[in-house]
Amino acid sequence: MLGATAAAGDTEAGEKLDAAIRSIGALDEAAMREAAARLDQLIKPPGSLGRLEELAIRLAGITGTPVAERPLRKAVVVMAGDHGVCDEGVSAFPQEVTPQMVLNFLQGGAAINVLARQTGAEVVCVDIGVKGDLAHERLLSRRVRGGTANMARGAAMTREEAIRALVAGIEVAEELAERGYGLFATGEMGIGNTTPSAALLAVWGGLEAKEVVGRGTGIDDAGLARKREAVERAIAVNRPDEADPLDVLSKLGGLEIAGLAGVIIGAASRRCPVVIDGFISTVAALAACKLAPGAEPYLIASHLSEERGHGLALRKLGLAPMLHLGMRLGEGTGAALVFPLIDAAGGVLREMATFDSAGVSKG
Amino acid sequence: MLGATAAAGDTEAGEKLDAAIRSIGALDEAAMREAAARLDQLIKPPGSLGRLEELAIRLAGITGTPVAERPLRKAVVVMAGDHGVCDEGVSAFPQEVTPQMVLNFLQGGAAINVLARQTGAEVVCVDIGVKGDLAHERLLSRRVRGGTANMARGAAMTREEAIRALVAGIEVAEELAERGYGLFATGEMGIGNTTPSAALLAVWGGLEAKEVVGRGTGIDDAGLARKREAVERAIAVNRPDEADPLDVLSKLGGLEIAGLAGVIIGAASRRCPVVIDGFISTVAALAACKLAPGAEPYLIASHLSEERGHGLALRKLGLAPMLHLGMRLGEGTGAALVFPLIDAAGGVLREMATFDSAGVSKG
Repeated sequence: MLGATAAAGDTEAGEKLDAAIRSIGALDEAAMREAAARLDQLIKPPGSLGRLEELAIRLAGITGTPVAERPLRKAVVVMAGDHGVCDEGVSAFPQEVTPQMVLNFLQGGAAINVLARQTGAEVVCVDIGVKGDLAHERLLSRRVRGGTANMARGAAMTREEAIRALVAGIEVAEELAERGYGLFATGEMGIGNTTPSAALLAVWGGLEAKEVVGRGTGIDDAGLARKREAVERAIAVNRPDEADPLDVLSKLGGLEIAGLAGVIIGAASRRCPVVIDGFISTVAALAACKLAPGAEPYLIASHLSEERGHGLALRKLGLAPMLHLGMRLGEGTGAALVFPLIDAAGGVLREMATFDSAGVSKG
Repeated sequence: MLGATAAAGDTEAGEKLDAAIRSIGALDEAAMREAAARLDQLIKPPGSLGRLEELAIRLAGITGTPVAERPLRKAVVVMAGDHGVCDEGVSAFPQEVTPQMVLNFLQGGAAINVLARQTGAEVVCVDIGVKGDLAHERLLSRRVRGGTANMARGAAMTREEAIRALVAGIEVAEELAERGYGLFATGEMGIGNTTPSAALLAVWGGLEAKEVVGRGTGIDDAGLARKREAVERAIAVNRPDEADPLDVLSKLGGLEIAGLAGVIIGAASRRCPVVIDGFISTVAALAACKLAPGAEPYLIASHLSEERGHGLALRKLGLAPMLHLGMRLGEGTGAALVFPLIDAAGGVLREMATFDSAGVSKG
């Protein structure tokens, strides 16, 4: 399990990454058995709440608590970064929209703010690599560099930069866990970021560019062709070593993608579940699991995005989406919509009567 | 549109039913256009919130309000009734569980209570035809008869009883609308009620018993065979007239199924959206739309149940489920889980910033 990251440990950041990966524990089997036994005593046909019951059991295994006393405190971590590959004309929106949207997240007017407010979640906004200056009192500045290089012409990042972005994500998750947050969702903002996501999925999924490249925020046919070409060129130019996740991630990834992979590793190391949003977040989860296979049972899939490639990425992780809403916005919006389902799963275990207590006849 | 129910109007209840059906209006096109125009000004790629945007537009059309000032007040109407067809050994649970579970709903210990509490919804419990005595201060008693007759040996109800059950549902919806509830979900309790639901779907869907009969609360193979036979026999014995929805509903239906069809008609007549739960609720929606085709745009699908036949029933109505959770409990549990998505759709319209107000560049 640790072979893939042994190479990370040469620097302080590398050691931090390796330590976080090593500290991810297995799910608590005893807590899961206890939760499952209780579910079967509740007044309903066994298993009739379907994936809500699976969720309740897994939350018990993740947190080590069979029946939680209260809902977990929720944070949507939105990582923002820019992409040199935008030079290839791969996005329907100009790059300046990345910092503009970050400011919107901080002012509370974006979709993710609305959905987070409705589900009682905090939006935590992290600048991990936006191009140009960006400052705001509520912005976490964890800037590794001001956007990636154009991956169609060389490596998007150095190996050391990818490690530092991963560690930034791990530290954000650790800080939030210290502050009492127990349930995370991954969100992102980065004009152009479906392009590196497609490149990563192509390599890790053994897929061709045309299978994984989609329209993102809504690019036209000519842009779609440029995007496919950029992904093909990036792979051909960089020749990433599939057996070395850090090599693939640094050459073809994004700062926010590496950062979110770090959030997942950090959350798993603190026994916190992480809800995965759409295409980019799911590719970040794939990166996290390539580096830290032990993180996989801490992941909760949310929705099936309209973006081509998302279903393939989920399947690669063995995850099935719960929401089918045809969304394709990112920001963590699909993940936030799953928070009420997670609270529902916990509430069922905590509040439902049993056959015995309610005096209901069994089948 | 009214031809099918013209025969209902011979009695006071029949006149009430016809009047409710006639009073269902079309969606407000102007409100829908206004909502759609606003959605396209919000800071997101056009259409990127997928079915959340469709929902927001439809809610505008249903309520006649482009941007609602606050979330709609929610009620889950749980109709309870018993089924004579249980004599054929079609259920995994004994019939006494129907009143036992109704008492549980009233005491707040069932799954629907937990989920309704979490989404701020009221559970309204209606005895429309439970076998035996049942009384509780919070139970709405709208009893038409103490359970249906065994449809495998004759008509489940008379035509007049079906009409009275429909009207009871209409009146419950009207009373709740008067009290300020603006969003309904359908729930039910009735041991054996997947059997009449399967029979109704077989007739209205032109399907064979084996395609629509499932395991309900978890019956074994022998029970499944008995259930199929009961459905086949009920159709053969009763020879329902497919062109006459009241004939089909009274001969093969259930009191709670007719009652929920009434809730849907009543809600639509008051311009309130109705979230449809699983198999039984969806068949009730089919009955409502057979009687009142104008009710169809007021329906919101929720989840895809594990029960065989549910997907077919949804397709027959042209509805696509949003949640894929493998649930099969009923009670309105799947529908209640969709309330947060409906609030989210409303919140997006109400709270998101526009490109202009936020100073974000367009694509």
